Amino acid sequence: MTTTFVHGGVVVSPTGSQPLDVLIDGETIVAVLQPGSTLLGADLASSSDVVVDATGKYVIPGGVDGHTHMEMPFGGTFASDSFETGTRAAAWGGTTTIVDFAIQNPGMRVQDTLAAWHDKAAGSCSIDYGFHQIIGDVDSDSLKAMSELVSEGVTSFKLFMAYPGVFYSDDGKILRAMQTAAETGALLMMHAENGIAIDVLVEQSIARGDTAPYFHGTSRPWQLEEEATHRAIMLADVTGAPLYVVHVSAKQALEQIATARGKGRNVFAETCPQYLYLSLEEQLGAPGFEGAKWVCSTPLRSRAEGHQDELWRYLRTGDVSTVGTDHCPFCLKDQKEMGIGDFSKIPNGIGSVEHRMDLMYQGVVSGKITLEKWVEVCCTTPARMFGMYPRKGIVSPGADADLVIYDPNGRTTIGVETHHMRMDYSAYEGMTVDGHVDTVISRGTIVVDRGEYLGRAGHGQFVRRDLSQNLV
Amino acid sequence: MTTTFVHGGVVVSPTGSQPLDVLIDGETIVAVLQPGSTLLGADLASSSDVVVDATGKYVIPGGVDGHTHMEMPFGGTFASDSFETGTRAAAWGGTTTIVDFAIQNPGMRVQDTLAAWHDKAAGSCSIDYGFHQIIGDVDSDSLKAMSELVSEGVTSFKLFMAYPGVFYSDDGKILRAMQTAAETGALLMMHAENGIAIDVLVEQSIARGDTAPYFHGTSRPWQLEEEATHRAIMLADVTGAPLYVVHVSAKQALEQIATARGKGRNVFAETCPQYLYLSLEEQLGAPGFEGAKWVCSTPLRSRAEGHQDELWRYLRTGDVSTVGTDHCPFCLKDQKEMGIGDFSKIPNGIGSVEHRMDLMYQGVVSGKITLEKWVEVCCTTPARMFGMYPRKGIVSPGADADLVIYDPNGRTTIGVETHHMRMDYSAYEGMTVDGHVDTVISRGTIVVDRGEYLGRAGHGQFVRRDLSQNLV
Amino acid sequence: MTTTFVHGGVVVSPTGSQPLDVLIDGETIVAVLQPGSTLLGADLASSSDVVVDATGKYVIPGGVDGHTHMEMPFGGTFASDSFETGTRAAAWGGTTTIVDFAIQNPGMRVQDTLAAWHDKAAGSCSIDYGFHQIIGDVDSDSLKAMSELVSEGVTSFKLFMAYPGVFYSDDGKILRAMQTAAETGALLMMHAENGIAIDVLVEQSIARGDTAPYFHGTSRPWQLEEEATHRAIMLADVTGAPLYVVHVSAKQALEQIATARGKGRNVFAETCPQYLYLSLEEQLGAPGFEGAKWVCSTPLRSRAEGHQDELWRYLRTGDVSTVGTDHCPFCLKDQKEMGIGDFSKIPNGIGSVEHRMDLMYQGVVSGKITLEKWVEVCCTTPARMFGMYPRKGIVSPGADADLVIYDPNGRTTIGVETHHMRMDYSAYEGMTVDGHVDTVISRGTIVVDRGEYLGRAGHGQFVRRDLSQNLV
Amino acid sequence: MTTTFVHGGVVVSPTGSQPLDVLIDGETIVAVLQPGSTLLGADLASSSDVVVDATGKYVIPGGVDGHTHMEMPFGGTFASDSFETGTRAAAWGGTTTIVDFAIQNPGMRVQDTLAAWHDKAAGSCSIDYGFHQIIGDVDSDSLKAMSELVSEGVTSFKLFMAYPGVFYSDDGKILRAMQTAAETGALLMMHAENGIAIDVLVEQSIARGDTAPYFHGTSRPWQLEEEATHRAIMLADVTGAPLYVVHVSAKQALEQIATARGKGRNVFAETCPQYLYLSLEEQLGAPGFEGAKWVCSTPLRSRAEGHQDELWRYLRTGDVSTVGTDHCPFCLKDQKEMGIGDFSKIPNGIGSVEHRMDLMYQGVVSGKITLEKWVEVCCTTPARMFGMYPRKGIVSPGADADLVIYDPNGRTTIGVETHHMRMDYSAYEGMTVDGHVDTVISRGTIVVDRGEYLGRAGHGQFVRRDLSQNLV
Repeated sequence: MTTTFVHGGVVVSPTGSQPLDVLIDGETIVAVLQPGSTLLGADLASSSDVVVDATGKYVIPGGVDGHTHMEMPFGGTFASDSFETGTRAAAWGGTTTIVDFAIQNPGMRVQDTLAAWHDKAAGSCSIDYGFHQIIGDVDSDSLKAMSELVSEGVTSFKLFMAYPGVFYSDDGKILRAMQTAAETGALLMMHAENGIAIDVLVEQSIARGDTAPYFHGTSRPWQLEEEATHRAIMLADVTGAPLYVVHVSAKQALEQIATARGKGRNVFAETCPQYLYLSLEEQLGAPGFEGAKWVCSTPLRSRAEGHQDELWRYLRTGDVSTVGTDHCPFCLKDQKEMGIGDFSKIPNGIGSVEHRMDLMYQGVVSGKITLEKWVEVCCTTPARMFGMYPRKGIVSPGADADLVIYDPNGRTTIGVETHHMRMDYSAYEGMTVDGHVDTVISRGTIVVDRGEYLGRAGHGQFVRRDLSQNLV
Repeated sequence: MTTTFVHGGVVVSPTGSQPLDVLIDGETIVAVLQPGSTLLGADLASSSDVVVDATGKYVIPGGVDGHTHMEMPFGGTFASDSFETGTRAAAWGGTTTIVDFAIQNPGMRVQDTLAAWHDKAAGSCSIDYGFHQIIGDVDSDSLKAMSELVSEGVTSFKLFMAYPGVFYSDDGKILRAMQTAAETGALLMMHAENGIAIDVLVEQSIARGDTAPYFHGTSRPWQLEEEATHRAIMLADVTGAPLYVVHVSAKQALEQIATARGKGRNVFAETCPQYLYLSLEEQLGAPGFEGAKWVCSTPLRSRAEGHQDELWRYLRTGDVSTVGTDHCPFCLKDQKEMGIGDFSKIPNGIGSVEHRMDLMYQGVVSGKITLEKWVEVCCTTPARMFGMYPRKGIVSPGADADLVIYDPNGRTTIGVETHHMRMDYSAYEGMTVDGHVDTVISRGTIVVDRGEYLGRAGHGQFVRRDLSQNLV
Repeated sequence: MTTTFVHGGVVVSPTGSQPLDVLIDGETIVAVLQPGSTLLGADLASSSDVVVDATGKYVIPGGVDGHTHMEMPFGGTFASDSFETGTRAAAWGGTTTIVDFAIQNPGMRVQDTLAAWHDKAAGSCSIDYGFHQIIGDVDSDSLKAMSELVSEGVTSFKLFMAYPGVFYSDDGKILRAMQTAAETGALLMMHAENGIAIDVLVEQSIARGDTAPYFHGTSRPWQLEEEATHRAIMLADVTGAPLYVVHVSAKQALEQIATARGKGRNVFAETCPQYLYLSLEEQLGAPGFEGAKWVCSTPLRSRAEGHQDELWRYLRTGDVSTVGTDHCPFCLKDQKEMGIGDFSKIPNGIGSVEHRMDLMYQGVVSGKITLEKWVEVCCTTPARMFGMYPRKGIVSPGADADLVIYDPNGRTTIGVETHHMRMDYSAYEGMTVDGHVDTVISRGTIVVDRGEYLGRAGHGQFVRRDLSQNLV
Repeated sequence: MTTTFVHGGVVVSPTGSQPLDVLIDGETIVAVLQPGSTLLGADLASSSDVVVDATGKYVIPGGVDGHTHMEMPFGGTFASDSFETGTRAAAWGGTTTIVDFAIQNPGMRVQDTLAAWHDKAAGSCSIDYGFHQIIGDVDSDSLKAMSELVSEGVTSFKLFMAYPGVFYSDDGKILRAMQTAAETGALLMMHAENGIAIDVLVEQSIARGDTAPYFHGTSRPWQLEEEATHRAIMLADVTGAPLYVVHVSAKQALEQIATARGKGRNVFAETCPQYLYLSLEEQLGAPGFEGAKWVCSTPLRSRAEGHQDELWRYLRTGDVSTVGTDHCPFCLKDQKEMGIGDFSKIPNGIGSVEHRMDLMYQGVVSGKITLEKWVEVCCTTPARMFGMYPRKGIVSPGADADLVIYDPNGRTTIGVETHHMRMDYSAYEGMTVDGHVDTVISRGTIVVDRGEYLGRAGHGQFVRRDLSQNLV
């Protein structure tokens, strides 16, 4: 097996950072060493097959993006990134593991849908991947399937309080699924928006001629995210299920989560870079149809109301546990354009799987979060949350050799010309970020190195996940 | 230099636990290795000078007790443990670093008092030690001294809102000291009880004949701890100083701290095992004068009011950051007995430096906290809080080789017959704890091994501390 | 017209109490006078047709019970009190106005149902009455009807988040009805329990053999009341509708309401005597089928959890605005018995329209609330809440002469032998209350006088109500 | 005795408003009557000595200003209004009762100081007056005096957490005084600012040359008001004393009070018009020395931080109980000017005893509070709070005939040219308010009538007060 020696860098973990060398044997980290120790480290550079000089750079665990939707079917079209293009873009951005969503719709066997997603991903991915399972129809079959999937390494299940007629589960179904989650120890993930009420507001908005992308946001007021979040927390409390609320964007929803966490509940929040950086006024409110680029649900929130700053604060206080992307890209051309004249027909989603590590590092540069918090929310906690630790999420012997050499002195400019996602626009066009992903190692293999993609479709493997390791 | 190889154990950190071997060169960990890796780990056992078999056991960072008072002068007597006996007892209990308090009283030069404490500790300690500085008289000289001490590795300063006429600082003095702390980045530690009001209640209690130890507790109601805690938080907010509230015992005080932390403030709580396990009714209320054993301030709180359970909860939620002992032992004979007939004359303090790791592990056994939380609050966070990370508090290359081999299947019975502290009673007499400290390594030297003390006074060194590494 | 002079008593209002004489001309109070004033009061006693000596007693506004269900159809049976028997019992208990509920079910015209209720009540009532309208099916017709009813003096509309398939409205329907309420200024009343989730728990409880009345309570956990309450608040917040939450029994639901009120929202809570006095353990948990007597929804709550004490506290703090009875009596025989072997078939309801004033006065006696608060929550605020002030709810010139002469030195024993409701049991059998309703005057007519019923069916008139006068 | 008949107006009380006539016999209201009733009201107009036509106007209880400082000694000068000029100005503004403060300083007998204040006020006042007693030195004598004063109709006692060396009481003294208040049932009033910390900030501000009036505000940050407020609440909680916090200006202090009230505590807040209308930036920050006009403590707060809006909200929610003026006028010339070059020497105080009713009615006009709330916080609750109900604060038979005929269609322009206070400037210069005080009746005597002062010094009498009638 190939041996790789990464030396000279500063290894960052959630508890701190220090100069450490890392020795990789094949796909696995086998040792972490004090630099310059004569006992073991003396000639590792010369005796290793591959040597990576990380001097002056951070060595961090490969990013773990717990929320992606590659080639997701949506209203007659598909998210524009395939597993191949999407995972390649993720690798470019320093993410070495994604957890995508297999989707069951009413009338389908859950196991069949998971198998279909296995088929799509197998042989296509540049980096490792796992699956959450969306349960679109909670019945006795799908409840039974939940138990089976846990033993197959799919240990988290997503339900929707939004999208009536598509993914929506009513509170009785949610209750039943949570009971099963509690029994099996699985994590219950929730899209927490009151879709029944939202659909009324959407219909009324369209009816009165408010059809531009901006009204996508105003039709989904924060109250209906706070409401659904609180409801999910209460249902979880009745059942004992651990609850993970995806893509939280409203500060009030986070306050509900913080309150539950303060009581010692196993309730967790994920947010996404778009909710930290972008806003209702600036992006969704862009002239003409341009706001369609940023149509996603939960929606971007008002900067005047201060959601973005509060989300950063909740990252600092620990009440936001993870940052995922909810990567679900659609091109403007032919896709987003389906909603010209009716925002409700715009495919929902923003693509940013490539930019998460950079965007969040920018929070370190601007003093919003610490270096350690960056690694915690982008790497370690997602790995723990989704049962992949210590295989993923930490630079430690025994772990998969998923590493990113990150240059704090580099710079990254984001845009459609330079990104590797299959999108005809960028949600962050022209933004320049301090810091740069120099080298990415996935299970011991260098897949990106200083501007060159060295990986291959099929290198990425399915990760059988354990139950969440993040519960209190 | 001696090389030591610790193999077969499960290394525990705040983010998780995994089987890892540890290689020590002299006083320092030089490598952490995957067990069984043929690349580096093959013959380490045979090539090392000392081999420790940790099979079936936990390998954790040596405990860091951030709150001890060895041979502290108090009302004409001294805490009964010297640095020699106290640090030896600490070592027996798996603690490899203490941070003790140098005490300035009015009329003294701060630097002189620190020098005096250096003299007491130098050559006496079995394990490493640092100092906080108590500022008993805030004036321009002592404020200047604070800045100087930071550069000498004493980076935290303790004030008292209790004990008028002894350690008490009024709010103006606290404000000034906090301003200096904010300027220098030092941590401001606070004994948060409203001593002015308490002294009235104490006087009234004695005057009406309520003189037994129990009334020590009733004279210090939770309201006066909550009050002082909130006051300290507000003064810290005015000045920008990071605040560390010592020995929090009232759930309401913790609620104040949790609220401040929820707003993103640098406010931290320490609690102690006595507040988690013992109570006003059961211990302070013991018949006759026996309650004197547990007279300490803040006092033990009412179990009927539920403080103990709430403190465990706040440990889980992260709003209690650290567990220290406030080790300040006094013997019953001649010392505690000074307060027969007048509880206000009982020397305040409980000794438990030897039992912290065991008592807190019992929280893991009983399901109150996770294994990772145990290491976090007893080892890693104290090290970070007090600027000693990664030298202390983590099992990592580059760190001091302070390790504890902890046997989860062992049992420890606590009592005056078996403990090593210089006390003629035990606060936990007869309590049996699951788990046992088997082997303790301090800077590469085995100081305790399966029931045998192998250390020596003078092995322990002064730790120059950096500023707190725990701020948000 | 008859003139009536009530003298010698102490008149109680929400702001205080003082000795005052009251002069009634026909149906209306025309003057309130200082006792003993020679200017006007000199010979009023001799010149009045009727003289009531209230010396040593309280003179309070006639009680206003904002929540009754006379002869309500329920699962093939009817609430056992007709408008005739129910209002007569109310009069016995010092209540001179009720607001009952007209019920629209799917397929019915709202206006037709109101007309039907008018028919039932007209000519039957001993005291005045108004109607709330239940909207069982929110559609464009019923929304239009809401506006029409407001102009007919029916200014409050009740929806249900419970009882799927019967009264249940989904969140979209609730949103629409609230929009109409906001437009018209009408009050939106809500039964706030998550019926969708509850029905799952009920089904599961029956399925596993937990069929006794006790399990009615455990199938409706407080979380599902807190949840629905918060949801209703959020929907009200989106729409701007004033919200009145009926029969709140869970302290956590009240905490949600208190939080909303603290933000200045027009959110109001009603509770009922049964939630203040009775409990899950003692009543619902009575042996055999006896618990059926107390099956109502929301259910009686656990005393161990402390709901009852907290409800009294929320009465004191003003976060409970009113006390209604939710009077909905069913006899044990033939009615409650329908649910032997299946608690879900037990008709829901407790009858206490006769006892509200006495039970709440007992709170004065026991020091739980003040005398003024008693009148506030039982008389004045209900009148203001439902747009009947100052015609009802206050002893003031211009008001309807609805008065109760209440003897604080009397005693009232509650039981099936003595009560006047058409029920074959009493929910408070054997309870003795300090205080007694001596004389009841309804629009100038004495209808009850020291143990004698002097009223008649048909005396009571329909009260056209204004919009709520209680908004902030 | 003179009889007076006030007819045609709308009487306003905290629970509502309605057309009512009022009959006065001598100094007392003897009847309140339905307008147009032929039974009693027929010829009252012709048979009364004095007839006041209130058609189209509000008839409200005379204002009760619970917080004035007439001719208060302060740093070698005196508040510029004497009891004569100040109460005359109050009458002009629709206030018919004030409660002023007798001041005990160290070394004085409490009873002597009260006697001195009685001497100053007797024969001087246009309207009725009561006294609170300031206890400047809590010792056994003054504690005993508190009990005595209660029986003399002085039932509230004010302490200061500010002004060390002048009025300041430490927490031990506060605790003792609160214990006495709890025993006697007296109300403990508190100036809640942390004066010890503030004095440090003041000294530092002056030392660095920040001497302008604006820095009076920045030296008294909201944290030090929140702090002291919470401290007072906790001390009150330990002792059981009812607590009334005067002149609350910081929203955070009010949040503390609201939290305590939510727990059912007898904690009350007073605010003043200046904190509702004026701000740190606009007034204290006026160019040059002009800000001195608005130097008072607690200080005006930042509008950017939103205190003013939050105070209005807390008025609506009921967590602000009363509005007093803290009337303590000093002229610019010779008085405020003492602080040129050193804001700490500016006499603290704003005069507005004449404008309170108008300024608060403006809140009704602008929709910030209801008409009923206006009367509640300006008349009824102060009367109840300070034990004068129903003699004061309500339009009711038996009450003193203190009435204001208020014209909602009038207009009032505020300024030094038109006001009647002895001040050479106005804090509200040029402000025009909708509404106008037309006629003021004090104990049956018309003292102001459509722009003419008809009262006399000496008409006003001392009001012996009962214990607070506002406790829960």
